[in-house]
Amino acid sequence: MKPYIHKVQYYETDKMQITHHSNYVRFMEEARVDFMEQTGWGYDKMEMEGIISPVIGITCDYKKTTTFPDEIEIEVSVLEISAVRLKLGYRMTVAGQVVCTASSSHCFLNKNGRPVNLKKTCPDFYTMLEKSM
Amino acid sequence: MKPYIHKVQYYETDKMQITHHSNYVRFMEEARVDFMEQTGWGYDKMEMEGIISPVIGITCDYKKTTTFPDEIEIEVSVLEISAVRLKLGYRMTVAGQVVCTASSSHCFLNKNGRPVNLKKTCPDFYTMLEKSM
Amino acid sequence: MKPYIHKVQYYETDKMQITHHSNYVRFMEEARVDFMEQTGWGYDKMEMEGIISPVIGITCDYKKTTTFPDEIEIEVSVLEISAVRLKLGYRMTVAGQVVCTASSSHCFLNKNGRPVNLKKTCPDFYTMLEKSM
Amino acid sequence: MKPYIHKVQYYETDKMQITHHSNYVRFMEEARVDFMEQTGWGYDKMEMEGIISPVIGITCDYKKTTTFPDEIEIEVSVLEISAVRLKLGYRMTVAGQVVCTASSSHCFLNKNGRPVNLKKTCPDFYTMLEKSM
Repeated sequence: MKPYIHKVQYYETDKMQITHHSNYVRFMEEARVDFMEQTGWGYDKMEMEGIISPVIGITCDYKKTTTFPDEIEIEVSVLEISAVRLKLGYRMTVAGQVVCTASSSHCFLNKNGRPVNLKKTCPDFYTMLEKSM
Repeated sequence: MKPYIHKVQYYETDKMQITHHSNYVRFMEEARVDFMEQTGWGYDKMEMEGIISPVIGITCDYKKTTTFPDEIEIEVSVLEISAVRLKLGYRMTVAGQVVCTASSSHCFLNKNGRPVNLKKTCPDFYTMLEKSM
Repeated sequence: MKPYIHKVQYYETDKMQITHHSNYVRFMEEARVDFMEQTGWGYDKMEMEGIISPVIGITCDYKKTTTFPDEIEIEVSVLEISAVRLKLGYRMTVAGQVVCTASSSHCFLNKNGRPVNLKKTCPDFYTMLEKSM
Repeated sequence: MKPYIHKVQYYETDKMQITHHSNYVRFMEEARVDFMEQTGWGYDKMEMEGIISPVIGITCDYKKTTTFPDEIEIEVSVLEISAVRLKLGYRMTVAGQVVCTASSSHCFLNKNGRPVNLKKTCPDFYTMLEKSM
């Protein structure tokens, strides 16, 4: 898997002259979208299968500040996978130094908002996630 | 009409330690929603009538910088109204000093995305906007 | 303590027609600023004392979706306080229903970026936080 | 000059399921930073010369909606240049179709916030901008 690169934008900085901490949650989404595309289960494919995976929780641990125009390299990994829940991990570095570690938890819903058993509905997707742990 | 107050948030500032200029476009939306509610044609009513009014253009002239935790007072006014187009003006002040003047242009569409003649479809709304010029 | 109210803005929603999950981290900051002001230790006072308290970690658990124009009521509480670290809790409700629970962790630094022992440097502030647990 | 590509992110969409109009002002900043770097007068160089060029005005004309995960190609051009003012133009396309045209106006200040005559202070930069019109 190729890590995702986010170049910090000027508008993502704040009065403390660093990247505002809320933006890392957005960088996580960017990296997650890219990760899913790399696995072959991008947004389009998920939509075609009629599955959405909303975020039900996040954690962020800020280790070092970053700022414009730093390039943040983000590695995504599968931390936990079950029939009803997925937990992803994020390791963000700038020039090899860890700046933030984070996680996001997701459930799986069909288009009517009902929970879906991923193992049964999308066994290929489930197996791929399990293997990439 | 009561002016709208936006209190600048920390996350709306940037590395220059001022409110990032892109955020004024968001303050305009907040003030517009409030203005429409005050006229009796809030978001819910518009939706019930099946009309949406997308933004087709904006202009912003930045006069003075603002920053956290300034309170920006925003006065909205109708600059132009025709059967197919609305142009609103925005005058933003902090402690009586003008910090930004701006405008937004809007068209009117029905739920299928087709242009709507506001004068015919919502004569009450049209007359109200015309009078408030 | 009076809870903080954040009215969800149109620009805070996303393609799923709900408030984008990253924005809750910003609502937390708004509520925290308000909480600190209510305790008498607002941003200005902290700055005068030469202390900054950067965010070193956050957690968010999303319970229910919200959307424009919901009013989110946010209660802030002190979860943990030590000489070198503060952890705040956030309980967000819409019409009495919990929509999100969250926490933020902070350290204390002086203007040179060096860690500060809050108990020694600002005993009044420390005691106030301890009492409000 | 190579055009700048902005890939629309999920968090940049809104309830109408399109890119929120305020975000184009941010895309303009991204493209401007890239344009300046390509001219050899990137952010670092400007800072070294002690010059900042705040945004004093913007205009945006929205032609077509975009959404996640569209790739917006942005061409930046010099519309006007004088000793005290710069106006840049932006042409944004998706798959060859114009989605937005825009402009930003800038003045030149030194580190004390005083206006600077660019022609005198940075003749090389001025000449480069004039030639690229």
